[in-house]
Formats: sequence, C-alpha cells, structure tokens
Amino acid sequence: MTIITPLQPTARTQLRREKERAGTDREALHDILLDGMFCHLGVVLDGAPLVLPTAYGVDLGAGPDGTLYLHGSVAARSVVAAPEQTVCVTVTHADGLVLARSAFHHSVNYRSAVIFGVPRLVTDPEEKQHGLNRIVDHLVPGRSNAVRGPNRKELAKTSVLALPLTEASVKSRAGAANDDEEDLELPYWTGVIPLRVVADHPITNDDCDLLIPAHIRTRASQLGAPA
Amino acid sequence: MTIITPLQPTARTQLRREKERAGTDREALHDILLDGMFCHLGVVLDGAPLVLPTAYGVDLGAGPDGTLYLHGSVAARSVVAAPEQTVCVTVTHADGLVLARSAFHHSVNYRSAVIFGVPRLVTDPEEKQHGLNRIVDHLVPGRSNAVRGPNRKELAKTSVLALPLTEASVKSRAGAANDDEEDLELPYWTGVIPLRVVADHPITNDDCDLLIPAHIRTRASQLGAPA
Repeated sequence: MTIITPLQPTARTQLRREKERAGTDREALHDILLDGMFCHLGVVLDGAPLVLPTAYGVDLGAGPDGTLYLHGSVAARSVVAAPEQTVCVTVTHADGLVLARSAFHHSVNYRSAVIFGVPRLVTDPEEKQHGLNRIVDHLVPGRSNAVRGPNRKELAKTSVLALPLTEASVKSRAGAANDDEEDLELPYWTGVIPLRVVADHPITNDDCDLLIPAHIRTRASQLGAPA
Repeated sequence: MTIITPLQPTARTQLRREKERAGTDREALHDILLDGMFCHLGVVLDGAPLVLPTAYGVDLGAGPDGTLYLHGSVAARSVVAAPEQTVCVTVTHADGLVLARSAFHHSVNYRSAVIFGVPRLVTDPEEKQHGLNRIVDHLVPGRSNAVRGPNRKELAKTSVLALPLTEASVKSRAGAANDDEEDLELPYWTGVIPLRVVADHPITNDDCDLLIPAHIRTRASQLGAPA
C-alpha cells in the first residue's frame, strides 16, 4: 500500500509565480511520473549545469516518500557526479500549443514535475537489480520478466541511483487561451493544438522470428499504436 | 544564407563515451532544433541545478553560429539568473523504445542537442520583438503575423535571452537493438516500439467564431493531425 503524504515545499520547490498552476499533492506528482517515459537530469559539473535526457523508474513503496531510480554507465560524467551533489530531475508532458489572440498570451498546456535531492548510489545487489527492473518495466510493464537479466559483468558496468521523492513540485496548465477582455473582438483565431506522444506498430528485429508478445502489444496499444 | 561551420567541441561538449553516437556537424544540430518544440533549460541557483521546460526560437542567421532565443517573465528565477552564468539548453526527441533480448542492451532511439553558453539579455527593442517572433513562429510558423503583437507593458514584463549556437554537441541513436552474439538464440522477442509526438485536430476557443486559418491547419497537419 502506498501512503500519500503532502509534498513539503522548500524555498526552491515553492513556486513564486502563477501559484494557481502548482499542484501540491503527491497524487499529481505520481501521475506525472507514471505517465512519463523520460526525464531530464540536471547536475552541476565544473560550476556549469549539464542537462541530459535519460530513462527512469519509480517505486512508490520504497522509502517514506517513494523512490525514483536512474541508471547509467559507471563512466558517465553525470552519473559519477550525481551521488555527491543535489541534482534536479524534471519530467515534462507537453499537452498542447495554446494560441491566443495576443502574442503575449500564447502558452503551452503541460504537466511537469521537478524533483530535487542528493541521489544515493545503490550498492546492494538486490536493490540494484530491483532499480533496473523498475526502469525497464517503467518503459514497458512486464518487460523485466521477458528478457535475459543482467550478469555480473553488466551489473559492474552500470550505476543505479536512488532519489527520494521528498522535495518536489508539480506545475501544469490546461485548457483554452486566456486573452485580455479588450482583445476578445480582435479578428484573430484562437484555440489549442493538442499534442501527445504516440507509438507506432512495434517493429520486430530482422533476426527475430518470434511473434510480438502480449506485453509489447499492450504497451504499444496503450500508447496509441494501431493494433 | 546560412554558413555551415563545424561544431567546435570544448571539454564539456566532447563526448567521452559512445562516440559513434555523436554528430559533429552543424546541420545535425539545426535539424534537432528545428524539429523540436520545447527545450529544458538548466541553470545553477544557490549551488543546485534547476531544470525547467520552456519554448524556444531559433535564428540561424543571427551571429556567426546562429542564435537560440528564450523568453520568460522578468520575475522568473531561471530567467533572472541566466544572463550572468553559463546555462545548458537541451532539446530531446524520443524516437523509440529499443527492446533487446538482454535487459542490459535495452535502449532508446533518440536525437538530442546540448548547448552551453552565457546568454545575453536582449535589450534592443527591435531584437526583443524579433526574438519573441522567432519563438512564436517556431511553435507555429506564420503565427507572429496573425496575432496582436506585444504592447509596451507586455514587453516590459518579458525578458528575452539570446544564446549563441557556438558550444554544442549532438547525440543520437537509431535502429534495431544490438544484442550480444551469444544471446541471439534466446527465446525473447526483440524489436523497437517507435514513438513520435503528434497533434490532434485544433480546438477553436468557445468564444471564437472564426474558421481555423491556414497556418494553424498547416502546422497541425505537419504534426500528424487528421485533416
């Protein structure tokens, strides 16, 4: 069972502007994380920020607030630097282009989660395997049961980081454009172009003569792929 | 005319691992930027990274290497901090989930561009207007000609940042999963679930009785929306 506790805003997760766009409950955070496939990991290297896209996994039952798992090569600069510093992980869904009558009120419909914390380098072999399973199963549920698991050599090449879902903020915008009262009669079209990420039909490797299994078909279909 | 010059890698844009995934020509950078709609902007605030999604615009003819334009409220922490420090702007396209026979060789097909630099706060009113037009036209080409432009009050509320496209790296992966030779006979399905961002049919605001104009229909259709 997952216990839902309120987000505890710190100075940097307390939104200063547009407070109506802030969601302060854990469920909004979880929805954004579970809906997303990739995050952007920010670290500081030699005083400058480095922002890289990467996959992630989530275990809402690990630790008091749940845990986000990241992985990477043991040689990756971002992964080497991360366990000793505060990192920022951002997950963003772009839901639509908001086209107002005025340039100023153009906007984007989106949902985003920003998580801060000092990640822990996972050293326990069982948790490391668990974290990797969460990452692969986040992309395709059930996948970790339908592959050859990592051997000792592969595990040694891979770092897994655990980031508690404690310090986080969520922000979103939805709905139509909001023009100023005095602009409502202007002869400019206003509306929204909805956006979403979709899958196409899975492509079997040339060197594989197996039928597409149920867990792959389910995931592709959930992402909007034609059957 | 845009002059194409080779990317000039610095220590932080020189890729250390998986060099075969690095694209070193400017055209690859431009393609990724022109194809993308949003970026993730990384800044350092109080010693910690902050990564936020935002829109951007591009003018390949501005400056020796082209210019990326960002904008935001004059009150936004990231925008206030950015002109005094090196920032990182990352644009990512997720093109597919790569499902190998082994967990270790699971991967993602993607194209990403990472740009470093100290952004310049745009103060010239003409360039400020130009930067804002590039941003709105990046999302929907032609849009800046079909809206009420910003008035003096709106311009005063908005900061525009210009980042030269000088220090950048691009990285991508495409194609099938690459399993180890000894795994090829394993009874696990392997292939790719292709991913893409699509638009749905534009939604006209309730308070607007105009027909959907050509520039909106063109953009939605280019993004895969049904006619």
